[in-house]
Amino acid sequence: MNYTTILEKKRDGLRLNSREIDFCIDEIARGHVPDYQVSALLMAIYIQGMTPQETARLTRAMTHSGEIIDLSDIPGPKIDKHSTGGVGDKVSIVLAPLAAAAGINVPMISGRSLGHTGGTLDKLESIPGFRTDLSIEEFKTNIKDLGLCLIGQTKDVAPADKIMYSLRDATATVSSVPLITSSIMSKKLAEGINGLVLDVKIGNGSFLPDMDKAEQLTQSLIDTAMLNDLKVTAMLTDMDQPLGDCAGNWVEIVESVNTLQGKGPQDLTELTLAQAAHMMLMAEKAETFDQAKETLTGLLNNGKAYEKFLQIVERQYGDISVFENPEELYQPAQKISILAQESGIISSMQTRDIGYILVDLGGGRRHVHDKIDPAAAIWFHRKKGEAVIAGDTLMTVYTNRPVKDLEKKLLETVTISEEFNLDNHLIYKTIKP
Amino acid sequence: MNYTTILEKKRDGLRLNSREIDFCIDEIARGHVPDYQVSALLMAIYIQGMTPQETARLTRAMTHSGEIIDLSDIPGPKIDKHSTGGVGDKVSIVLAPLAAAAGINVPMISGRSLGHTGGTLDKLESIPGFRTDLSIEEFKTNIKDLGLCLIGQTKDVAPADKIMYSLRDATATVSSVPLITSSIMSKKLAEGINGLVLDVKIGNGSFLPDMDKAEQLTQSLIDTAMLNDLKVTAMLTDMDQPLGDCAGNWVEIVESVNTLQGKGPQDLTELTLAQAAHMMLMAEKAETFDQAKETLTGLLNNGKAYEKFLQIVERQYGDISVFENPEELYQPAQKISILAQESGIISSMQTRDIGYILVDLGGGRRHVHDKIDPAAAIWFHRKKGEAVIAGDTLMTVYTNRPVKDLEKKLLETVTISEEFNLDNHLIYKTIKP
Repeated sequence: MNYTTILEKKRDGLRLNSREIDFCIDEIARGHVPDYQVSALLMAIYIQGMTPQETARLTRAMTHSGEIIDLSDIPGPKIDKHSTGGVGDKVSIVLAPLAAAAGINVPMISGRSLGHTGGTLDKLESIPGFRTDLSIEEFKTNIKDLGLCLIGQTKDVAPADKIMYSLRDATATVSSVPLITSSIMSKKLAEGINGLVLDVKIGNGSFLPDMDKAEQLTQSLIDTAMLNDLKVTAMLTDMDQPLGDCAGNWVEIVESVNTLQGKGPQDLTELTLAQAAHMMLMAEKAETFDQAKETLTGLLNNGKAYEKFLQIVERQYGDISVFENPEELYQPAQKISILAQESGIISSMQTRDIGYILVDLGGGRRHVHDKIDPAAAIWFHRKKGEAVIAGDTLMTVYTNRPVKDLEKKLLETVTISEEFNLDNHLIYKTIKP
Repeated sequence: MNYTTILEKKRDGLRLNSREIDFCIDEIARGHVPDYQVSALLMAIYIQGMTPQETARLTRAMTHSGEIIDLSDIPGPKIDKHSTGGVGDKVSIVLAPLAAAAGINVPMISGRSLGHTGGTLDKLESIPGFRTDLSIEEFKTNIKDLGLCLIGQTKDVAPADKIMYSLRDATATVSSVPLITSSIMSKKLAEGINGLVLDVKIGNGSFLPDMDKAEQLTQSLIDTAMLNDLKVTAMLTDMDQPLGDCAGNWVEIVESVNTLQGKGPQDLTELTLAQAAHMMLMAEKAETFDQAKETLTGLLNNGKAYEKFLQIVERQYGDISVFENPEELYQPAQKISILAQESGIISSMQTRDIGYILVDLGGGRRHVHDKIDPAAAIWFHRKKGEAVIAGDTLMTVYTNRPVKDLEKKLLETVTISEEFNLDNHLIYKTIKP
């Protein structure tokens, strides 16, 4: 068996068998395959596609290319969630402590900001002292003691994915269903979990603007989970506007803290409760979805979820005293109000553009070594379907850095119409295979 | 314009326009594109293909990535030929002096042995002292003085091709019609020629065993030549058995010398005359094919073609005294007779296998730095359609190196049948667009 012969098969649109997939991924992970041969395979997979069986095996091989965390000595269910990412999506930060407060172990390995989207790790690191680079031993201890831990991908998890992922942007092989699926799922399978809730974002702020492709990806993620014996629930949810009332690293922590205390914006609260409820059903901690939601709402209102959050922040070396006056921690040089130029109903928000403006304010990265400014933020005072009168404040920008034509650019992201035509969805579909 | 966006277009099966193709090739030639991005483009071209216009522009861009030899100060036609390669194919060595003797300028840039096939440069370098690494200045002077010169690709000719070619084997992108076409033709267009005779080999000793693919390639080569204002005649010729009576570096020089004196084997003589005749027609040095062949046969028989050969060998620093007793120059340690084990008619020869056995004897290279043994050779005493009686010598091997199971391996390359069923073709088709 050799790499080039297998590459020829995929080039010609043939199916690869398990031995061939395992061989290729093993060779890649060992560093035996030069980048130019890896990228030829990525392009062949992009164009010729893969069957569900091939994708599941590719995922498994990528998982097995590195360390698989063994949580078998921790009793109880271990369930995580994954979101394909968007603007203002801080669900993980609320969800992990909430689900842990409900008796679920949440071993969460998260990512950083990517393109126009924010990253859970970057948000958490805006808490002074908070560390996401814990060892696997500490990770396990924290889950055992507190029911959760929130870290970044270690170098030992799915090394084949690291190599392949690093080549995809430059080789135009990002938006491939089997490659996205295997990249997401190989890392999740390495977490040692029994169940996973998937949040596939759709809309102009997601990586998958059209429903067809999002549904294909969702089905592929579900198939791959099932073929690898992982319980899964998938939700297709809206990313045609930012989630919650703000985007930015520290402000999203503050909004998460409010939500954990039952004072969060309605959309964020609703989506987090739904995802946590599916985790409870999967863990057999509730009989019905409504019952699960009721229990979870109680945990937000009685302070148990927030208490869990403070415990894990402290355990991960974060300074919890900042939560006494969270608005005072970072003081941006400027707070700029963006005023509506006309009256009407907000009919659309160009969410990807908003995300990139936030990146330029310092809230994300254009290049891998860019430093993030935790204070940079955009507040959304009006969202889709809401009425505005000319002169109303649409948004407030927090910034330490001038951005050319900021007001003009932000006003261009919002369409104000005369007619009220509400077709807002928060959750399009939930699939429990 | 950027490389990745263009790569996306080809990935999605769209046509690239001239500006996009020029940009990519220019970036590759300048070393601005890492190998892994080049190989992703190669795979996308392999799978999605190219239109004749795209292939022609790709070729032109690759030609323009380096030096284009200017032969405009040399009067008269400049015509070359290119063969896709095979076993025992020494046509170039006979053809170049023959065509030059007929008044055609032949600026020939040749290649080395590749896979199971021999290379003109390796054969020429078995002549003591002969140099193929002349400067472009010397190349031009020799053409001006003698009407021909035989050199290798200089580092300044088609540098984009060098980069792309070096990646194709490892990325399973060798047998792509647009990539083969552009690699061949970019170098030929850089020679500063007005016309080209193409010899596309078909059969079990060629790189294109099936007729369909060979015809596609031939059409692509013709289209690319015409779209780049180059006169072209293409021949599809047989490589289902070795050409001539021997394969090996020095023995092929000896056979070429015999052919140049009118004493060559029938197939080699016939094919060389046909190709040279098409060069004469292209150069308007003859009215009809038959008339051209008559003139050329005269040049073999009256010593003019051989005289031209001796002149260019001497000019390229070769020792012509070796041609007084050419059989004595290299004395192999062993001469091994391979005897027929049964009686009948030879119905097939596995030409590629024969080529690889010759490589193992030292006649070619398994790795780029392998040294060639000029003495290694295989003589074919019987060829397809000829009768043998058990005990007859089928082949003679010249070798300085033991090869395991040599006799068994060589006998396996020849099928001896009871029935006489001759369907030998030397030239399948000639296309003059």
